Amino acid sequence: MNTEERLIESTRALLWERGYLGTSPKAIQQRAGAGQGSMYHHFAGKHGLALTAIRRTAEELQAVAEARLSVPGTALERITAYLRRERDVLKGCPVGRLTQDPDVMADPALRAPVEDTLAWLRTRLAQVLDEGRAAGELDRRLDPPATAAAIVAVLQGGYVLARASGTTDPFDQAVSGVLALLAAHAPETARQRA
Amino acid sequence: MNTEERLIESTRALLWERGYLGTSPKAIQQRAGAGQGSMYHHFAGKHGLALTAIRRTAEELQAVAEARLSVPGTALERITAYLRRERDVLKGCPVGRLTQDPDVMADPALRAPVEDTLAWLRTRLAQVLDEGRAAGELDRRLDPPATAAAIVAVLQGGYVLARASGTTDPFDQAVSGVLALLAAHAPETARQRA
Repeated sequence: MNTEERLIESTRALLWERGYLGTSPKAIQQRAGAGQGSMYHHFAGKHGLALTAIRRTAEELQAVAEARLSVPGTALERITAYLRRERDVLKGCPVGRLTQDPDVMADPALRAPVEDTLAWLRTRLAQVLDEGRAAGELDRRLDPPATAAAIVAVLQGGYVLARASGTTDPFDQAVSGVLALLAAHAPETARQRA
Repeated sequence: MNTEERLIESTRALLWERGYLGTSPKAIQQRAGAGQGSMYHHFAGKHGLALTAIRRTAEELQAVAEARLSVPGTALERITAYLRRERDVLKGCPVGRLTQDPDVMADPALRAPVEDTLAWLRTRLAQVLDEGRAAGELDRRLDPPATAAAIVAVLQGGYVLARASGTTDPFDQAVSGVLALLAAHAPETARQRA
């Protein structure tokens, strides 16, 4: 990795672990093994670096989610693949975490990728649920946008519960819980096929 | 309020808004209208004050949840009363927020009330769900601990989504989504009665 890349990756890691306030220019430089001059050669400052870092984290999250949600299979299988993908649960979601960061939320530019990513995720899951309804895999009474919001909330809240307990168990339980509730929404015929 | 109370309440508000790192002794004193000598007369320092503040926030959250979960009614009605209670959604959960605070999570004493409160909430909801199953209001196949974890996760994640979007809509949608999934788990007879 060149210096610019190392600066971006160090900022991403620090934002995830320490938040905006806890991410000092000095800490970024130390982690990246870069000098102050080098940092200001590539970026106007901490804000510009944080913006690049947050945008990249947001893009990666969307790409990873899309990869799981577009596997072949039923809506329930695709959502299961997404929820059950390997995650560093105890570190939490690098995007969701930023919603608890007052400095990020107060800055429209830093906040935009956070807002856009979580909105995209809800829309994409609602699409998958809608496809499942159209294919007769899910009950027609199921409301795709509300169900999608609940699924994304389970993920984000699952991280919160896991961090509180210091184990991944409550995350896994919450995911199992919502998948079981969703599976019960499959019409009898679809359930028998599964 | 006396000075000690004002110091505690100021610390609670600052921890909620700014996190541990963003809560300086000076900011606490200013918000409380108290001098440095007065603060150190009542508390050994920021850590002791934060511990008292976090414990009180945790106790209040449990008391408010218990008040809703113990209203008369079916399990689904009690859970609905709890999820739909008035909340300052955009400020997020004062307890859940602390799981994203690295200084709180790294300190066993500060972290304990956070862990205990979210664990208590899952256990209490599992109890309510179990009572609903026993009363024939909910399908016997429903797994109370997993469902309870999903419900608490929806709340915590709902706050995350609301903060990201700057509106309460995704929180309300997520709550509606999980309640609809849960209602579909009521046996046909219970559903017809409702």
